[in-house]
Amino acid sequence: MTTKLFGEPVRRREDARLITGRGRYLDDIGAGALAAAFVRSPHAHARVVDVDVEAALDVGGLVAIYTYEDLTGPMAEPLPVLIPHPQLHAPRTGYPLANGVVHHVGEPVVMVVATDRYVAEDAAERIVVTYEELPVVVGIDTARAAGSCVHPDVPDNVAARHHQETGDVEPALAASPHTLTFTQTIERSACTPLEGKGVHARWDPDDGSLRVYSSTQASTSVRAAIAAKLELSLDRVEVIAPDVGGGFGVKIVHPWPEELLVPMAAIRLGREVKWAEDRREHFVSSAHERGQRQQVTVGFDDDGRLTALDVHVWHDNGAYTPYGIIVPIITATQLVGPYAIPVYRVVVESLYTNTVIVTPYRGAGRPQGCFAMERTMDRIADALDLDRAEVRRRNLITPDQFPYDHHLTFQDGRPVVYDSGDYPGLLEKLTALVGWESVEERRAEAAGRGKLLGAGMALYVEGTGPGPYEGGHVQVLGSGKVLVSTGLTSQGQGHETVFAQIVASELGVPMEDVEVHTGDTRRFGYAVGTFASRAAVMSGNAVALAARGVREKALRIAADVLEADPSDLEIEEGVVQVRGTPGASIPLRTVAVLSNPLRYAFDEAAKQATQFATHDDTRPPVAPGDAPGLEHRDYYSPLRSTFASGAHAAVVEVDPQTWEIDVVQYAVVHDCGNVVNPMIVEGQVHGGVAQGVAGALYERMAYDADGQLQNASFMDFLVPYASEVPDVVIDHQQTPSPLNPLGIKGAGEAGVIPGSAALASAIEDAVGRRVAAMPISPSELYDLVRDPSSERTAAAGRRAGTGATA
Amino acid sequence: MTTKLFGEPVRRREDARLITGRGRYLDDIGAGALAAAFVRSPHAHARVVDVDVEAALDVGGLVAIYTYEDLTGPMAEPLPVLIPHPQLHAPRTGYPLANGVVHHVGEPVVMVVATDRYVAEDAAERIVVTYEELPVVVGIDTARAAGSCVHPDVPDNVAARHHQETGDVEPALAASPHTLTFTQTIERSACTPLEGKGVHARWDPDDGSLRVYSSTQASTSVRAAIAAKLELSLDRVEVIAPDVGGGFGVKIVHPWPEELLVPMAAIRLGREVKWAEDRREHFVSSAHERGQRQQVTVGFDDDGRLTALDVHVWHDNGAYTPYGIIVPIITATQLVGPYAIPVYRVVVESLYTNTVIVTPYRGAGRPQGCFAMERTMDRIADALDLDRAEVRRRNLITPDQFPYDHHLTFQDGRPVVYDSGDYPGLLEKLTALVGWESVEERRAEAAGRGKLLGAGMALYVEGTGPGPYEGGHVQVLGSGKVLVSTGLTSQGQGHETVFAQIVASELGVPMEDVEVHTGDTRRFGYAVGTFASRAAVMSGNAVALAARGVREKALRIAADVLEADPSDLEIEEGVVQVRGTPGASIPLRTVAVLSNPLRYAFDEAAKQATQFATHDDTRPPVAPGDAPGLEHRDYYSPLRSTFASGAHAAVVEVDPQTWEIDVVQYAVVHDCGNVVNPMIVEGQVHGGVAQGVAGALYERMAYDADGQLQNASFMDFLVPYASEVPDVVIDHQQTPSPLNPLGIKGAGEAGVIPGSAALASAIEDAVGRRVAAMPISPSELYDLVRDPSSERTAAAGRRAGTGATA
Repeated sequence: MTTKLFGEPVRRREDARLITGRGRYLDDIGAGALAAAFVRSPHAHARVVDVDVEAALDVGGLVAIYTYEDLTGPMAEPLPVLIPHPQLHAPRTGYPLANGVVHHVGEPVVMVVATDRYVAEDAAERIVVTYEELPVVVGIDTARAAGSCVHPDVPDNVAARHHQETGDVEPALAASPHTLTFTQTIERSACTPLEGKGVHARWDPDDGSLRVYSSTQASTSVRAAIAAKLELSLDRVEVIAPDVGGGFGVKIVHPWPEELLVPMAAIRLGREVKWAEDRREHFVSSAHERGQRQQVTVGFDDDGRLTALDVHVWHDNGAYTPYGIIVPIITATQLVGPYAIPVYRVVVESLYTNTVIVTPYRGAGRPQGCFAMERTMDRIADALDLDRAEVRRRNLITPDQFPYDHHLTFQDGRPVVYDSGDYPGLLEKLTALVGWESVEERRAEAAGRGKLLGAGMALYVEGTGPGPYEGGHVQVLGSGKVLVSTGLTSQGQGHETVFAQIVASELGVPMEDVEVHTGDTRRFGYAVGTFASRAAVMSGNAVALAARGVREKALRIAADVLEADPSDLEIEEGVVQVRGTPGASIPLRTVAVLSNPLRYAFDEAAKQATQFATHDDTRPPVAPGDAPGLEHRDYYSPLRSTFASGAHAAVVEVDPQTWEIDVVQYAVVHDCGNVVNPMIVEGQVHGGVAQGVAGALYERMAYDADGQLQNASFMDFLVPYASEVPDVVIDHQQTPSPLNPLGIKGAGEAGVIPGSAALASAIEDAVGRRVAAMPISPSELYDLVRDPSSERTAAAGRRAGTGATA
Repeated sequence: MTTKLFGEPVRRREDARLITGRGRYLDDIGAGALAAAFVRSPHAHARVVDVDVEAALDVGGLVAIYTYEDLTGPMAEPLPVLIPHPQLHAPRTGYPLANGVVHHVGEPVVMVVATDRYVAEDAAERIVVTYEELPVVVGIDTARAAGSCVHPDVPDNVAARHHQETGDVEPALAASPHTLTFTQTIERSACTPLEGKGVHARWDPDDGSLRVYSSTQASTSVRAAIAAKLELSLDRVEVIAPDVGGGFGVKIVHPWPEELLVPMAAIRLGREVKWAEDRREHFVSSAHERGQRQQVTVGFDDDGRLTALDVHVWHDNGAYTPYGIIVPIITATQLVGPYAIPVYRVVVESLYTNTVIVTPYRGAGRPQGCFAMERTMDRIADALDLDRAEVRRRNLITPDQFPYDHHLTFQDGRPVVYDSGDYPGLLEKLTALVGWESVEERRAEAAGRGKLLGAGMALYVEGTGPGPYEGGHVQVLGSGKVLVSTGLTSQGQGHETVFAQIVASELGVPMEDVEVHTGDTRRFGYAVGTFASRAAVMSGNAVALAARGVREKALRIAADVLEADPSDLEIEEGVVQVRGTPGASIPLRTVAVLSNPLRYAFDEAAKQATQFATHDDTRPPVAPGDAPGLEHRDYYSPLRSTFASGAHAAVVEVDPQTWEIDVVQYAVVHDCGNVVNPMIVEGQVHGGVAQGVAGALYERMAYDADGQLQNASFMDFLVPYASEVPDVVIDHQQTPSPLNPLGIKGAGEAGVIPGSAALASAIEDAVGRRVAAMPISPSELYDLVRDPSSERTAAAGRRAGTGATA
């Protein structure tokens, strides 16, 4: 058997290329293409009164200017609501270019195409758009107050009311020995990938086809959108995601206006057209997430066991709802985490505001849900003077309870049934890893140094790898190269490595022979996309199944040639051999040549294959149901999601002079089932923790009341540097998923989910004041501690006099 | 049931486009591409002593010059022998550019690339190639004499000796009541398609891929050749046959040097490069066929029944053997025609000459075989004073003898076993159609007008639709469009119409909804090619099978939605409906949308589909073994070829003053099994008859002893105009093939096969002199009649004194 690559910490094969600058990102493509720039609304809510392009017309190099008036057919209709939902009673979407009214700053109004980007920008600057300003709605409070409305026919600004309940919550709360009610806030943040969005389009008049490169997380869906909106036949549109510099969710939205407008211009002009988003554009015209207000009422008994949970969520969905209510549904359904909750009710109101749209950002509603659930656990512990780990332990679903049905409905319409897990095991590993027992000791030690030390933890369960499907294609060429293709896209996750590991393991070939392609509709036309921690689960299993199909075919052909039984054959290092019979073997590449009955001896491989060729007049060259070529295509389509889980603990030290928050320890125990490549999983966790810390301590969208984003640049939007990201220690737990052949679960988003919850817990533990809004900055922490009305924790009261609280 | 389109004379849907000049032929592609021109050898056999490009270098617009010295890797190796054969004991092939020695006039020596074709030609003209001339071998006699040799290590000029026998021929001949021995000659001709060859190549640096358009009959094989020779991975090469202006065989050869050199230049230069062959280039550097000398010895009894047949064929294969011995094998195996021959022996010698290569031309060795067999029948009739039709009738295989095994081996290595036919039926229809009984009456009437009238006939059987396979792909899009794709190429045969008819019939959709694509490796990567009358048989059945797969899937999905049993459903005019239940229906396009569990409502079709969508939590969205999308791919791979058959009769009038030969009547009875579209089959027959008449009366390659082609232009090479092509009356007979689902046989080449045999028979009948060499011109006929040594037919002798003979 070939060295089992599955499970090994194989180095990322894409890194050498990417790190040495040989990646091909969107803006590396199409030298010589025309460039697009956009005139975007400077107002959050306004009527477009006039667009005067006169002054732009004499800019040398200007090629075209498009406004809404230039859009025809489906392009003049609103953008689609991608995922309608019966509870999304008032869906609204924008237009590719603003049609009369703009609803947020940054909305595209005019598209300019010129010979170069700077020319396009110069021309765009000369275009005079006259606006009539309208009242602006910013923030959940203003939206709920409904003094003004974002859309005139949605006077209460409520786009959707979503509601799920697993029992009768009112009597359950009434019967509870204890209840608590509190509210919390999570502010807006955004994905901020290193590379912004970007689109390049080329119309091929010889072929009557359109090739679009997009820095997207969903090339097949972008293709479908372009075909529909530009009225092209699907088979005449190719969409390719080249190297993509991060996505984190914002690039799954589709079609972005630019993904339609750039191809439209390319077709109309018969020239290549490209647009690469700049950073300010990304801030004001891409998508945000996270912003929620939560009101939690929890009932529990004297032991801290939950009796009922009632949550109301107000969700800021921005100006439009192209993505439906996916984010708040995820909050609603995944909030329950690893806990058995006898009765649960959740009500979500999704609110329009005159801000950029809100769509899934890594974690996608889960960080907010985790924040609600875990801070509830902290409050119960505080109320009952119990250890926070112990309260959690008492409420955990136990390993014998799987499959565990929450009686909730997931965002894909399927039931929330946990497949497998060991949550007590996670908690036990976590407390050991972080040294939970020694926190008080360390608190005292830190106090001696004048620092306020606190520890916090948070657990989560994450539905990963939702369907409906992904497909994989594996083909062995006569050269011996093994081509692997799957439709979903890559944004730096290491798919080239992971899928190659899986296929090399399944097929018995050296990993160097395997070449992986993703996100290219020419190679694989059916795909869902890369989001929801689904790539490894979905495409990993799909390519494994495809490889198994290839293996079966290879053994069948080789058995014929070697006059052996397929079950006596094995493939090792790319050679099919009869087990225990040295010399009775045939290279897999030769099997590939033989798999096609049409063989011209164009190269050595084909010539060598002739020695193995057999001729049998009694059967057709291609048997019924068979096909030429050593390739196989298969799909993995799960009955429901797998559920990954994890537990984070953070230890912080707060400086009572500067109120700077220093994360001195960060521990993660992570369970994503069988691990294909622990190095890559750990990298994903590291990155997630970085974004979790960012969301907890630094990043927020600072809108003013006029809907102007005050910090729309990396000068003002605080992304943590490496210096701000804590060292992370990781322990793995593996509870294989019974739902898929490889037993794996997703890992892409896990790291980010419990960040705010764990850090709020730790900060609260350090300063003894209730932390109910994240992120929190040193100045906010200072204000909180100084505010006489801010709530002290009971633990702080109990610790009073130890010198450990402020 | 939808109107049955199969079998209807549907008008060719491609004609409106092609006739109005909207075809996209090779030279219509790639405006702005660089142009290639070639310096070709002016000598038939010479050593290249020096290539001096100095004078070309100052031509403005010159981009590159390549000679053999510039070729690297596999490009510097000889071109492949496409189909090796053990009896091809001395295969020889050329190089993409001449390596030291040229072996025929027109062989490419230098490639010039420039901004425009005229610039490239100007530069090419200034390149001085110094040659040292070598002895030249032209014609079968010179080659057999072996005074000089084409290849120094093949001193007898014999490339191959092929031999088949079905019994012991010598004793059978010895025991025969009668024997006859005679020799015959067929001269060289060529395909001369309206459009010459042509190649356009574009390297895409963003994609690392090469797109090649070639006016080819085999895009998948060209792709494989380019990948191998230019050392590209197969998946990085796309080859597309655009509209192709006729092929007739010459475009099945691959790789032509230009198909490698143009892409090589495109890659090296990073620019689009195009080459479109001019007419002279086509004459001197493409391929020819037909040239054979035959010696026939036949034994027969008093009734004219064959007892043994012994044939020796000397075949002129030109300077190289890239296509192996395909042509003479076809002559050898298909010569037997519709006749039961007790003992048959055939020996072929394939000879090198310093002329252009010989590869299959429509009919591919069959016209020569038919000429041998049918003239044998005429000679037997003449010898025994029997009616020529009656002699044939007595020797025919009868309908009860199928499958009829000749105990010969076909060119694809499979046994020559006739599947079905009714040869006596053919003959009966033919004699009725042409009025065979009234020939003597007409002869007398013509004599009264001073004309020599004669009638002739020829029967043939043609192996059509050889394997190994073709594939078909059928996909229904959400728009309702039905995409049909097959890998083989089209050169004007009407595939767009025929494959659409087949799929529309199988699927129950209007023909307007069906769009057919051929010869595009992006759409279908596995194919053999368009030759050997195989397109309808192979791809016709493949797309039928694919359509059946789509139909089955559509019924399954629709049954689910309509809560019906699939067997109760029918598809009519693109709507699936429950038989006998009006209103219980769903459009096929909606089934297509539903077939993909990932549905975004980008267009109306998708929105409408939502009303039918069902949700079932108990099964995965894509069942194991299933796939998203309403599409199916299938292959047709026959155990062996089908055998079409036919009979032609010609009546000629010869003017004894000018010896002009006027074909006054031409009758065809044709049997290609079930007919998909009789209008297209008749068109194929018409075109074939035109080429048959051309080969019999006009077209020949006039090489001089130095190997210079004296008539390498349409000024000198006599292609018949419409005025020279007789009106053709056609009768059909349909003996379905039991070998394939549609019961069809090929029809593409049939018309050309018996042309020379039937016309030689008719001319001989008119003038009473033995016609043993074709083509025959008026002056040659004059010489023949005047030559006292020319053989008079016995019939002429018997008719002497009637005034009907010369």
